[in-house]
Amino acid sequence: MKKQRIAIDMDDVLADANGRFREYAINHLSVDLSASLDTPNLSWEHAFPEHQPLIRTWIRNEGFFAGMQVLPDAQEVVERLTHRYEVFIVSAAMEFPLSMKEKLEWMNQHFPFIDWRFIVFCGHKYMIKADYLIDDHEKNLKYFEGHPLLFSASHNLDLQGYTRVNNWREVEAMLL
Amino acid sequence: MKKQRIAIDMDDVLADANGRFREYAINHLSVDLSASLDTPNLSWEHAFPEHQPLIRTWIRNEGFFAGMQVLPDAQEVVERLTHRYEVFIVSAAMEFPLSMKEKLEWMNQHFPFIDWRFIVFCGHKYMIKADYLIDDHEKNLKYFEGHPLLFSASHNLDLQGYTRVNNWREVEAMLL
Repeated sequence: MKKQRIAIDMDDVLADANGRFREYAINHLSVDLSASLDTPNLSWEHAFPEHQPLIRTWIRNEGFFAGMQVLPDAQEVVERLTHRYEVFIVSAAMEFPLSMKEKLEWMNQHFPFIDWRFIVFCGHKYMIKADYLIDDHEKNLKYFEGHPLLFSASHNLDLQGYTRVNNWREVEAMLL
Repeated sequence: MKKQRIAIDMDDVLADANGRFREYAINHLSVDLSASLDTPNLSWEHAFPEHQPLIRTWIRNEGFFAGMQVLPDAQEVVERLTHRYEVFIVSAAMEFPLSMKEKLEWMNQHFPFIDWRFIVFCGHKYMIKADYLIDDHEKNLKYFEGHPLLFSASHNLDLQGYTRVNNWREVEAMLL
């Protein structure tokens, strides 16, 4: 039987992007943005409008993506998923051209069992054909034609209407 | 009515990759590889095995992708296609991480009417959902579930079994 296909987002699903913003905010602004980042349904882009121009520069900083932590249990669960499913990593990296090289290196470093042929950098995701999409953004899940799985992140905690997975252990329980 | 979707490859479809190899061969090896590159069904990877290790280094050279010429009529026809179809550019850039930034800049320079959201860098292409795929490689066309269109390049001239388009004027005649 043909394996089912799972498409998995990177930022705030495999990689702790929000944590990286917090870290940069403490180091570069000397402010603790935790409260803002934990405001439900506010993305980092909108959570602190007064800092937005500066934050947009961080994303373009060398090392910003390279230094992200892996979210808990992601490595173990994704590796186990690859045995039963065809796993593609699908990241909207195209918006930040400099991030692409770092994101690919990050994948090679932390998820070396994912071959480069299964990594996709894109803008829109609705043209990806898969059975599942694990993503933290409604804009990606909304037009997905398979089963969308909303991966919890501070900015989507109030979002309704999607099957939610709060962490990788819940993905494991659902799919393995 | 929903627009039909066309996925378009970059190397040897929009960009004259074979021409770039010829140019590098003349400049760096002082040899004219035209004959080898024009051998039907031989890709540049296999056409001149004795130079292959060196050629693999060219691809990793800064500027290799940036300096590619646009294939004749590609700009005009692709722009016209965007009015009638949803056009995605789908390039297997992931194999050469350094190429990604240059490929994106190349697209912005020569095809500025293609928004970054419609550019995809990947390895495999079979998970792209589209009505048409214009590509020069059988490995990409073979598992594509829409209408595959084989774009002629020296390395695929003997390939049978696909609807062939020899140049962008033929794409225009077929799709516009």
